[in-house]
Amino acid sequence: MPAGFAAAREYLANSASLVEAELRRQIEVRPDTAGKLRKAMEHSLFAGGKRLRPALCLAAGELVGGRREDVLPGACALEMVHTYSLIHDDLPSMDNDELRRGKPTCHVAFGEATAILAGDALLTEAFGVLASSHAEADRVRRAIAILSSAAGAEGMVGGQQLDLDGEGAEASVERASAIHEKKTAALIRAAVLVGGVLAGASNVELEELGRYGQSLGLAFQVADDVLDHTSTAEEMGKSPGKDADQGKLTYVAAVGLKAARKHARALSHEAVAALAAFKGRATYRVLAELATLAVERKK
Amino acid sequence: MPAGFAAAREYLANSASLVEAELRRQIEVRPDTAGKLRKAMEHSLFAGGKRLRPALCLAAGELVGGRREDVLPGACALEMVHTYSLIHDDLPSMDNDELRRGKPTCHVAFGEATAILAGDALLTEAFGVLASSHAEADRVRRAIAILSSAAGAEGMVGGQQLDLDGEGAEASVERASAIHEKKTAALIRAAVLVGGVLAGASNVELEELGRYGQSLGLAFQVADDVLDHTSTAEEMGKSPGKDADQGKLTYVAAVGLKAARKHARALSHEAVAALAAFKGRATYRVLAELATLAVERKK
Repeated sequence: MPAGFAAAREYLANSASLVEAELRRQIEVRPDTAGKLRKAMEHSLFAGGKRLRPALCLAAGELVGGRREDVLPGACALEMVHTYSLIHDDLPSMDNDELRRGKPTCHVAFGEATAILAGDALLTEAFGVLASSHAEADRVRRAIAILSSAAGAEGMVGGQQLDLDGEGAEASVERASAIHEKKTAALIRAAVLVGGVLAGASNVELEELGRYGQSLGLAFQVADDVLDHTSTAEEMGKSPGKDADQGKLTYVAAVGLKAARKHARALSHEAVAALAAFKGRATYRVLAELATLAVERKK
Repeated sequence: MPAGFAAAREYLANSASLVEAELRRQIEVRPDTAGKLRKAMEHSLFAGGKRLRPALCLAAGELVGGRREDVLPGACALEMVHTYSLIHDDLPSMDNDELRRGKPTCHVAFGEATAILAGDALLTEAFGVLASSHAEADRVRRAIAILSSAAGAEGMVGGQQLDLDGEGAEASVERASAIHEKKTAALIRAAVLVGGVLAGASNVELEELGRYGQSLGLAFQVADDVLDHTSTAEEMGKSPGKDADQGKLTYVAAVGLKAARKHARALSHEAVAALAAFKGRATYRVLAELATLAVERKK
């Protein structure tokens, strides 16, 4: 992580411990889970991710003055959905990855069937965790609708299908952007919106948070494409250059490295600009720094 | 289907058309779904299932006097979760089935990656459909918690893991029952409970509905084990004897055919008995007949 960004670093660290403790509790309150399934879920859930989505969810909730305990189940649900998507994307019939965050992927460690089931279970339980929030029932209902829509056929799952369909196709900015928007930005935007909704944000606030999340999500994915082209395996914790090798439609393939870097920074600026109305609020600085950090990170 | 059971037959037919029309609408209101993903979802969703779970959901809602439009999203969600589970169970790394309801399974028709994604999308969208119910928000929240719990790590997904773990293990009544309870009964019970909750059932009514659903679900799965041992491929629409060939822990393997048949009927009687307090209500006869039909069916 580059120097500076003190507020974002501290918030990421604090929210990661909060969310990890709650995720462990959520596994423990399901004691009747088959042993191998539970181990596979834990293997991927506690593999040392950045916990960016839960941090965004919690920070968005605090930004609009919500109670942390109302928002925490949303933060956990987001991380569970993100983790399930990594498990399924890594499968042999998908991206066929053997390494994730420097550890064997779920199917390498537990076999393909159990990896599929661990992903299914995390996705299913995410909605149960969200439904357990003590926020007003109508806010919970809306948060579930937002998460389902962002993760489903028109969102993340649809993005993975486009990604698979597009392997070997000619790279264009439009095509790469469409994949990024569904595959990555939709869930990052949902993280921010779920936090806002559970905390009781107004519709105007939700619109601003949505624009922030959308720009940040796209910035994050363009930066990821750049890192895939420039990093070493040690820095990435996974095989670099793999997307390009598989003929995936990356932003770098479409416009080149220099223009991609520039575009990521522009998106990051857009994200910060979307927060203008929140200047001076509790987590404004955290969210603004996270938007910058998303494009300045090394992994 | 055996003769008689007029009320159940008519209800199944009517609710199937209602639910299929609503499922088609739910696919249509997600127009931005990648073409191949949408086709795969439709392939499995409209493959001519019995639509037992949605019928149970709707009938339970009517039994306690609820509005059909409040319950219909629950019925659709149940069928979507059931369909996703069939798609994933059929995968090469799981049961490796090539035929389902007389048609090629999803991965045979669309490839393994798209089949996994179609299952993921159906599971994800199921919660979105449920969240769209216009029932009171707290009822919706509770219905989502019930569905997640029944389908998740301690329910259906956990049952599939136990099923895989148990292949080749010694058959015992306890082990076969534990698998049945999670893998099949949990979701059938949830179908009844989701209908009840969305319709505003009291806690006492929910307890009775839960006992009905649990007994019916177990009866259904024991009857399935019996059919797997006795049917022809034409009757089943899938390969008969396959569970036994794969060394799966079936109830028939544990106690023999005759005792299994007897047990299925006893469970079916228990289901009907659990409905005693509802005698004379709108869909009492339908639910009682469905419990009998579950063990008298030929496929």
